[in-house]
Amino acid sequence: MNNYKKIGIIGGMGPESTALLYQQVVRSFQDGFGAYKDQDFPEMLIHNLPIPDITVDIKHEEDVRKMLSRSVHFLEQSGSELIAFPCNSLNYFVDYLSSQTDIPLVSIVEETCNTIRQRNPSEILLLSTPTTFEKGLYQRYLGDTRVIRPQDYTKILDIIIQTLKGEHPSEEFSEMLEKEYSSYDNIVIGCTDLSILVQNYQDERLIDSLTCLSQSIVQNSVLESKDK
Amino acid sequence: MNNYKKIGIIGGMGPESTALLYQQVVRSFQDGFGAYKDQDFPEMLIHNLPIPDITVDIKHEEDVRKMLSRSVHFLEQSGSELIAFPCNSLNYFVDYLSSQTDIPLVSIVEETCNTIRQRNPSEILLLSTPTTFEKGLYQRYLGDTRVIRPQDYTKILDIIIQTLKGEHPSEEFSEMLEKEYSSYDNIVIGCTDLSILVQNYQDERLIDSLTCLSQSIVQNSVLESKDK
Repeated sequence: MNNYKKIGIIGGMGPESTALLYQQVVRSFQDGFGAYKDQDFPEMLIHNLPIPDITVDIKHEEDVRKMLSRSVHFLEQSGSELIAFPCNSLNYFVDYLSSQTDIPLVSIVEETCNTIRQRNPSEILLLSTPTTFEKGLYQRYLGDTRVIRPQDYTKILDIIIQTLKGEHPSEEFSEMLEKEYSSYDNIVIGCTDLSILVQNYQDERLIDSLTCLSQSIVQNSVLESKDK
Repeated sequence: MNNYKKIGIIGGMGPESTALLYQQVVRSFQDGFGAYKDQDFPEMLIHNLPIPDITVDIKHEEDVRKMLSRSVHFLEQSGSELIAFPCNSLNYFVDYLSSQTDIPLVSIVEETCNTIRQRNPSEILLLSTPTTFEKGLYQRYLGDTRVIRPQDYTKILDIIIQTLKGEHPSEEFSEMLEKEYSSYDNIVIGCTDLSILVQNYQDERLIDSLTCLSQSIVQNSVLESKDK
């Protein structure tokens, strides 16, 4: 067994973007560390958890807490040494998750905000679920940086839902990025379902939360490996 | 929580093809059952297990058994109701895996052979690792059907290794399928790393083991759902 920290992932929100995170972590080990044999990759546990919908609001908060608590304890029992979750809306529960375990938690929103801060922008356009915006999940970490949501933000929710259904309105989304959002220098892909649509898209204005998370997972697994 | 059986997956051989299996299962639930909200998908646990290399031969058999046993017990503890593994070479350990648990095991090789038998072929061309061919993993289930390996089978191993490294020699592989293997009516993609290369490839001669497995996982999770 190699020396990387064992990675626990609470996923399934939605499942396709969790699969993409898994793939991104694998590619980072291939490209960055020359991994190719099975034993060159970290041990990982991915829990696809079918929680009640939290995209628009948090209706079944107690049920979600119970499921998350079960998942965290389960990943803990399995020996996970860091826990991450590839869903921005789920960051609503980040304090609760932290209260359930001593294992370091890698927060997708916090990691994305670390990348945003490096650019020191006065404002960002946040493309996210209503929950992520309205609960102030990004605002919490961004100090004076103004967090803007698109005027017609229901169109973003439509695109998220289409992607969750397995339809991939990539062209429609890239047209919005190029036309409607042309005046923004910093556009945050703050929903991992939207990350599916921009995975092969080149645009320096974009800060993709899924990529920020996968990079942080790899760094945490490698740099803090067991014998260091 | 929905009523689907909880799926346990022993993966990581290689990790990229396990990510593809995850994606295929998700797509099947989207396309076949109209799933889109998180709660519409089954609970799944995917264990990315860094076992010692088994592509060419089985050198560290005892170590692999220990890791598999740990993984099976762990998936069992988590409440998994069926266990699958998206790696053909790993079918070498299928009897050992069965001996470790009462949970139904979905064998990728057995499921692929079920599909092969529906075609009733006199022969198949098996594209696989040396382990899968030389240990007779397909031959075990296929009765009189002749299992042929390509003459220059080391080229297939090269392609598998390139894919494990994150290089994707799709064109080279499709050229082989069209030219060198043009005389075969039934070509089995008997290594899930090769499945990565043919995921968008249309060729009726192909029987893809990863697709056979993902279809069987979905059927087993849905048809034998908890209250039936």
